[in-house]
Amino acid sequence: MSQMLAEIRQQPAALAKTLTSELRSTEKLKKYLATRRPKFIVLAARGTSDNAAQFGRYLLEIATGIPVSLAAPSIYTLYKAPPSFEGSLVIAISQSGESTDTNLVLERARAQGAFTIGITNEADSSLAKLAEHVFLVRAGREKSVAATKTYTGQLLALYLIAYALGAQVSLDDLRLVPDWTAEALTVEEAIRARAERYRFMDHALVVGRGLNYSNAFEFALKMMETCYVVAERFSSADLMHGPIAMVTHSFPAFLFAPPGVTWPSTRELVEKLHGLGAETLVITDRSNKEAKEVSRAVVLPMSLARKSAIPVELFTPIPYIVPAQLFAAHLASIKGLNPDEPRTLSKVTKTM
Amino acid sequence: MSQMLAEIRQQPAALAKTLTSELRSTEKLKKYLATRRPKFIVLAARGTSDNAAQFGRYLLEIATGIPVSLAAPSIYTLYKAPPSFEGSLVIAISQSGESTDTNLVLERARAQGAFTIGITNEADSSLAKLAEHVFLVRAGREKSVAATKTYTGQLLALYLIAYALGAQVSLDDLRLVPDWTAEALTVEEAIRARAERYRFMDHALVVGRGLNYSNAFEFALKMMETCYVVAERFSSADLMHGPIAMVTHSFPAFLFAPPGVTWPSTRELVEKLHGLGAETLVITDRSNKEAKEVSRAVVLPMSLARKSAIPVELFTPIPYIVPAQLFAAHLASIKGLNPDEPRTLSKVTKTM
Repeated sequence: MSQMLAEIRQQPAALAKTLTSELRSTEKLKKYLATRRPKFIVLAARGTSDNAAQFGRYLLEIATGIPVSLAAPSIYTLYKAPPSFEGSLVIAISQSGESTDTNLVLERARAQGAFTIGITNEADSSLAKLAEHVFLVRAGREKSVAATKTYTGQLLALYLIAYALGAQVSLDDLRLVPDWTAEALTVEEAIRARAERYRFMDHALVVGRGLNYSNAFEFALKMMETCYVVAERFSSADLMHGPIAMVTHSFPAFLFAPPGVTWPSTRELVEKLHGLGAETLVITDRSNKEAKEVSRAVVLPMSLARKSAIPVELFTPIPYIVPAQLFAAHLASIKGLNPDEPRTLSKVTKTM
Repeated sequence: MSQMLAEIRQQPAALAKTLTSELRSTEKLKKYLATRRPKFIVLAARGTSDNAAQFGRYLLEIATGIPVSLAAPSIYTLYKAPPSFEGSLVIAISQSGESTDTNLVLERARAQGAFTIGITNEADSSLAKLAEHVFLVRAGREKSVAATKTYTGQLLALYLIAYALGAQVSLDDLRLVPDWTAEALTVEEAIRARAERYRFMDHALVVGRGLNYSNAFEFALKMMETCYVVAERFSSADLMHGPIAMVTHSFPAFLFAPPGVTWPSTRELVEKLHGLGAETLVITDRSNKEAKEVSRAVVLPMSLARKSAIPVELFTPIPYIVPAQLFAAHLASIKGLNPDEPRTLSKVTKTM
């Protein structure tokens, strides 16, 4: 079995451990932030961590009402023109904690009086030393080059930050996420069988919206890294503004399809794609009954109906990425590739 | 001749007209903003206009030091959770001025006390009525579905906004841009001949960084819209963090290669891509002598050396997109497609 597959399966335990271990310091952070509400929030990251940051961008803005921006590291590293970050909260996300450019963003921001948080897997990393508050993703060492358990761990840390900022993120609901993730793993054999169909796929389209927009980036990245598929990723709205012209007969499309406010536009897009002759596969759960009626579907066993989170799909991004990770890992094997050793890549990438 | 090609050629005159016509109101705006410096800036747009916004994100942050964010319209339209925009500057960009979702962002922001600017081609549009200050892109009616002259006009407006915010954007330098754009058009025949080589290209990679990052998005979008090429777009740094694994022998790659701080990492990437057997084509100008030594190159006749803008590539994005637009228009014709009528698309796209 590949390391990637083993690490995908470690996620429920890793998430439960991270949640339990980080709760106390989250409450401390909450007290600290209660009297120091940031004027805006900046997220800095690269690669998979940048996809987690993209999730944070939606979660934190929706849940806290504080404007959020994704940092453009080259503005610090190449142009040496850091903007003014007084009164802001700057969050850097890095699996290794040794990403030179995102660490530089954090350092510059802290020097300007921003409050800084680091999210990393490594307690002894440069990032853990630089940041004023550290969330440790307690996923254990990630050996596969393709990140999986650190991505979901980073998403979990972002929920805790939203909670610490006073958002309506229920810890009771959050405690269900490791279980939902375990339930998501039960679809593995169905996913493996389905992946056979895609043996000769060389390009693809992945669509997500709102809270699951980052999952579209992450699914596409896993397919690029481990299956060498040229995978495009868009929100349904951005796709309609031009790129949809490239979609033709037999184009493979993957869509995240939670229930809630993003579903009507996702359903509309599924129908449009079918009209163009594309073949869709949606990732959804039992509480979105329409999804499996309009498209081939991976249906997760969890059901959101029993919970009352607002928005209803608030806690879908972690369980929903699991079938995507499984799909990429199995498709790589089906294509005769080793998902643990993508050509050209190494685990720690340093860029400036 | 296609409308798209005709409109590409209208750009020098359109830019000169927009610049002359908007100068007086820019000076007025500058006086107004002198005493009301925004705490942060938010840009809202879709499609090609969103690529212009991506440019604005880099330009305004680098040149003014004010933090900049790209709005996620679904947070307003679907989640109905607009963040707090007091004391900010919100800029909406739309060719037609009738983009429902970006107009909603502007409306909500204005209601919260943000100062609002609209950039549009249409003086009588909803956006022109909603915004407190309007920049009119005086490019004439854009008939081609694939936007070209409105994109460069939007970039010009963003330079004027940077100037109005007190940035070191010299109007004397800016006045050279229409001439540089005219010079860029002289490479058309060389581009057309070169495009023949790509007759059977069905996927591609476009790379840009910093101020030319948005051009990578825009070049890829033109190829998706008019040539149906599955075109990926990345910064050189993001490409290294995973997606480069998909690059294999004969992968076509296009890179924006201005002189200045982004060139060393771009050159490094060109060499890496060659090592993987990919074929590169760089867009550069006479002042970057190294570029044409390391790669096949489109060399624009302009030379930045005579000017002293900081950063040196500050005014490259408008002339540099011209060969990309020409390439897409000619490649579409070579592929037997009509670039004015991309399948599936219409000129005004409304999404929520």
